Amino acid sequence: MKIAQFAAFGRPEDVLRCVEVDDVGAPAQDEAVIDVLAFPINPADLLTVEGRYAVRPPLPARLGAECVGRVTALGRDVRGLAEGDLVIPLDRENWVQRKKVKGAQLVKVSANVDPLQLAMLKVNPPTAHLMMTQYVDLKPGDWLIQDAANSGVGHCLIRLAKAAGLRTVNVVRREGLADELVALGGDVVVVDGPDLGERVRDATQGAAIRLAIDAVGGTQVVRLGDCLAEEGTIVNYGLLSGENPQLTGHQTVFKRLRLTGFWLVPSLQRMAPAEIRSMYEMLAGRVAEGSLHVPVEATYPIEEIARAAAKANAYRRTGKVLVTPNGTPK
Amino acid sequence: MKIAQFAAFGRPEDVLRCVEVDDVGAPAQDEAVIDVLAFPINPADLLTVEGRYAVRPPLPARLGAECVGRVTALGRDVRGLAEGDLVIPLDRENWVQRKKVKGAQLVKVSANVDPLQLAMLKVNPPTAHLMMTQYVDLKPGDWLIQDAANSGVGHCLIRLAKAAGLRTVNVVRREGLADELVALGGDVVVVDGPDLGERVRDATQGAAIRLAIDAVGGTQVVRLGDCLAEEGTIVNYGLLSGENPQLTGHQTVFKRLRLTGFWLVPSLQRMAPAEIRSMYEMLAGRVAEGSLHVPVEATYPIEEIARAAAKANAYRRTGKVLVTPNGTPK
Repeated sequence: MKIAQFAAFGRPEDVLRCVEVDDVGAPAQDEAVIDVLAFPINPADLLTVEGRYAVRPPLPARLGAECVGRVTALGRDVRGLAEGDLVIPLDRENWVQRKKVKGAQLVKVSANVDPLQLAMLKVNPPTAHLMMTQYVDLKPGDWLIQDAANSGVGHCLIRLAKAAGLRTVNVVRREGLADELVALGGDVVVVDGPDLGERVRDATQGAAIRLAIDAVGGTQVVRLGDCLAEEGTIVNYGLLSGENPQLTGHQTVFKRLRLTGFWLVPSLQRMAPAEIRSMYEMLAGRVAEGSLHVPVEATYPIEEIARAAAKANAYRRTGKVLVTPNGTPK
Repeated sequence: MKIAQFAAFGRPEDVLRCVEVDDVGAPAQDEAVIDVLAFPINPADLLTVEGRYAVRPPLPARLGAECVGRVTALGRDVRGLAEGDLVIPLDRENWVQRKKVKGAQLVKVSANVDPLQLAMLKVNPPTAHLMMTQYVDLKPGDWLIQDAANSGVGHCLIRLAKAAGLRTVNVVRREGLADELVALGGDVVVVDGPDLGERVRDATQGAAIRLAIDAVGGTQVVRLGDCLAEEGTIVNYGLLSGENPQLTGHQTVFKRLRLTGFWLVPSLQRMAPAEIRSMYEMLAGRVAEGSLHVPVEATYPIEEIARAAAKANAYRRTGKVLVTPNGTPK
């Protein structure tokens, strides 16, 4: 069977290879074997290949934060799953044709949903959902603000906030995105700038915004802070500017803003299995009803993993790049 | 009677004046009149005069965050106070010879304690106490770390942490302070530097430090963050570097540190009156038993307010500068 791996840190399109390895064999009692139907190429995967992610794996390394698979064999102790079920594995190293996974690490999802969409369910939707719900107790009608609003997480957040009755201010770095983000359900779209706070107050009639979600870092965090009410919270989850997230002394002391960060891995580790399953069930339901949908730019076979990574790294894509290691899912 | 005031923002020694105003007259039913025995000159007072504090008062302005006074007259509805009692007013504009205050705004303190020490009880000790207790639930034996350890709040924090059975890492900017801070009760004293995290881990045998207290801002916050365990909290209360408090993206996302700030005014506003009184009672008890003590550099009469401010602004003082508007307290 084929897997994607890299033997040296470097540019993804230079170092990613599709290699042939021994098949996974039969499952142990508590395991299932799954065929991987599709996986997306996420920024965190590319950072891992570049050696810039939190964890630098020993080389050569497999990778891949998420996928969707179909169960092809089951150990006799695995409960709640049947051959043919669609599943999302909670573990990593998903850029493979086939894998063995503990039954407890598999979340069953509806077989009636587009597998390409399910392949993107594990990371971005819960990232958006948990950032939106775990830090500030927002009620329907409340506002939140986010930057990088045109990113994968940004789109999820707009859609999930809309479905939850929350209102969003969406900060982007260039003109021309407002129509698209409003069509997704965004309430206000503003282009970033030094007077962001003032323009956001105008656009929201001075609403008290208590949650900001930031993927940029640097002084963007200060400008988001200008948009927040006293004691508001800023949750950072990315660093597109490459600069340290910062607040002014006025914002820390006199506004008592709170700055922290979100990482999905420990958040999931802290949740009970039933809680994780019910969250993914809710999110898969949003996909099924069409309120959560990620545009797809292109799909590639696993043999073309380097080309797929290059495409995923390209500026101004309009959708996500996925790999379908067992051919186009039916 | 005499008061200190300023009619223009500027250097404190240039713009502070002692002026003669009408006396306060008799108290209303719910008021007391107090003679101010002593007040300290705090950094926040000087920032106010310079126009750099959160609030820029209309001019000319009185000022003064704290003092200790003696009750000289009482309205008939004021309960729990008698003429001759020593009191700390919770309101501002304390740089005066005499003032009228609502009885509900006065905290009675022991008459057997040095009035100069009581004059410094309202701001720094509760700032240290509340930062140490309100953000992270620390148990005896736990560590905390602070910078600006040789400041007024820094000294209070060392003493209060010691009395609470907590252990302190004290970061300073120059050599030669260790003996003094250890004598106050500090456990570890380190001079700041790029490898701070490593040296602090060595000095504490790798203890998991969950609370950092910062008065410097800028990249000092990053270095304190290097000393903290995952999900540790940094409470900022000053900006000695003049630079924005910041964290790295690694610290926000992968360590999930929390950065926020402390300001005494809203913290007190949020506490119930009984809670405020019992906190100050506890702190006055620490002064009485000698475990809380602030060295005094010099005292001045109110007529010399400009000289007193210049002295308070001087680099490398060894103690606090106070003013005694009614002569040396007996």
